[in-house]
Amino acid sequence: MPDPSQFIKASAAQSPFFVGVDLGGTNVKIGVVDDRGRTLSWLTEPTESEKGPESGAQRMGEAVLRAIADAGLSPSDVARVGLGSPGTMDVPAGMLIRPHNLPGWFNFPIRDRVSHYCGLGVTFTNDANAAANGEFWIGAGSAMHSMVMLTLGTGIGCGIIIGDFSIEGENSHGAECGHIIIDIAKDARMCGCGQRGHLEAYCSAPHVVNRIELALASGRESSLSPRMADGEELTPELLAEEAAKGDALAREIIFDTARYLGIGAVTLLHTIDPSGIVLGGGMTFGRDQSELGREFMEEFRAEVRRRAFPVIAERVMIDYASLGGDAGYIGAAGIARFQWLRSQHG
Amino acid sequence: MPDPSQFIKASAAQSPFFVGVDLGGTNVKIGVVDDRGRTLSWLTEPTESEKGPESGAQRMGEAVLRAIADAGLSPSDVARVGLGSPGTMDVPAGMLIRPHNLPGWFNFPIRDRVSHYCGLGVTFTNDANAAANGEFWIGAGSAMHSMVMLTLGTGIGCGIIIGDFSIEGENSHGAECGHIIIDIAKDARMCGCGQRGHLEAYCSAPHVVNRIELALASGRESSLSPRMADGEELTPELLAEEAAKGDALAREIIFDTARYLGIGAVTLLHTIDPSGIVLGGGMTFGRDQSELGREFMEEFRAEVRRRAFPVIAERVMIDYASLGGDAGYIGAAGIARFQWLRSQHG
Repeated sequence: MPDPSQFIKASAAQSPFFVGVDLGGTNVKIGVVDDRGRTLSWLTEPTESEKGPESGAQRMGEAVLRAIADAGLSPSDVARVGLGSPGTMDVPAGMLIRPHNLPGWFNFPIRDRVSHYCGLGVTFTNDANAAANGEFWIGAGSAMHSMVMLTLGTGIGCGIIIGDFSIEGENSHGAECGHIIIDIAKDARMCGCGQRGHLEAYCSAPHVVNRIELALASGRESSLSPRMADGEELTPELLAEEAAKGDALAREIIFDTARYLGIGAVTLLHTIDPSGIVLGGGMTFGRDQSELGREFMEEFRAEVRRRAFPVIAERVMIDYASLGGDAGYIGAAGIARFQWLRSQHG
Repeated sequence: MPDPSQFIKASAAQSPFFVGVDLGGTNVKIGVVDDRGRTLSWLTEPTESEKGPESGAQRMGEAVLRAIADAGLSPSDVARVGLGSPGTMDVPAGMLIRPHNLPGWFNFPIRDRVSHYCGLGVTFTNDANAAANGEFWIGAGSAMHSMVMLTLGTGIGCGIIIGDFSIEGENSHGAECGHIIIDIAKDARMCGCGQRGHLEAYCSAPHVVNRIELALASGRESSLSPRMADGEELTPELLAEEAAKGDALAREIIFDTARYLGIGAVTLLHTIDPSGIVLGGGMTFGRDQSELGREFMEEFRAEVRRRAFPVIAERVMIDYASLGGDAGYIGAAGIARFQWLRSQHG
């Protein structure tokens, strides 16, 4: 949630204005930002994907207009709307193809339908790319010329930005870096996508949970065991709690995760050589408000420094994301702004 | 060597003209091309790196002028010179930093010194990036919008081009894809750079040779053994000869190489999602003039198709490079042309 002190009134904001829409499987978050990325208003709506994509597009279009009114603006003050969505998708066509988190929203021209319902031009992008652009514009990447963002959650999202260019790919499958291969072993961990050895199969929340389940099943001792015996669910949050209290197994699993992530990051550093890497996402130990989060970051940085070329190890900036759940709508608005700026300059 | 039928006379060529310089540890290759990448003249010179970088820059500058005269042109017909060099380097500064193949050419402002000796503006780039740009301009990638080129040789070179943009990186270490990590095992193969598990440690010429040495040392039978007992050196060429005759071990090592390379390629496809992948370089089995080369390519393609996202597996183009040892100077000239075009359009 944005720091309220960052909110500004329309009278103090710098035009033109942009609206960002962050479409998720459960909620849609919509915000109005000014030309410097400062939020004037935001709201969330349940996605209710079971009502189907046309209903979703209509409710999103109407919510865009509501957010604009909440900001004290009228639609004519808004230059463009950005819409970030989970894939699979066809970005140039503005189509959802087969998004995992939006069952039934298949082969749907969402960009044009949202545009129809709000009456504004819409720029379409991938949710991970939107979040990366938010951090790049006004967040943890704002001092970087180029940036790779990795987001740890149910999957591993990635956005890659170089100067004024985001890598979207020829088939809208660029920066799918959860699916880079870090392990060629025949029995490498199986990713949710059905392939072995992917970064995501080591570092996403369900796979971290699975790694500790396997360790417990092999007879390792842990203070997690009595809590699970009491019926608690094994989650990254529970893991983080016990790690913070000093449980050796929980700490091993968490810091191994940092090292796996460091290995994936080095592959990206040796491919992109960006100014910096930003880590985002919801896993509790992945935040620098906690001692555990700081230790996780230090282990990640150390693995990168051990394995990267010296000049990269010395210079690359590595930080946590700073915009939390707002990066998506801010970045979607930023991408819309970028397309609008290009259209203004021919 | 360019097909002589591709050579054109200055009177038939399309101005402006560009010169490409491909600086290697043993030879320098210099060619004059027209605005469509067609070669008017080329020559090679020994690098003689032991004479030091200032002498090298002077001889390169003079050879540029000689190549221009050979083409029937004068220096004022040439818009710009491109220089591709092995790293390490600082591209924006025009500096060689510590190139492995040019001992002693350390911290040398090569771009400006070559420019001084030929009296023309020089654009500086990495040799692998130059080769990729050559293939992208008029070679195997000329129908692609974006391309990853992997070059198999003493190391693994890489160039990544997306539209009108080459990934050079913030520290001139972009597209160093020989050094992506494909194996997290603690005993993963050691790369020449001192790190474990890199793609290059499986697929470069010395590492392919080492993999077969290890297999022979472990007692595997092969028709290579009697040839080595006769004093022949174990090289990729020898390996290819015996594989072509049906030796099982030689074939296994070669096709495993194709599969390792396919694994690395999938990581790049899931990061860049390019139109295509181009394989270049000097390893004998890596060419499609031979049955073995065709089999190598089929094994590489098959591994990519097995492991890549379905839409990428279906659409990505995968081919051998077509310009051979001319890609470097043609691409260096192409990068110079690109910088010149940008300067013309503000």
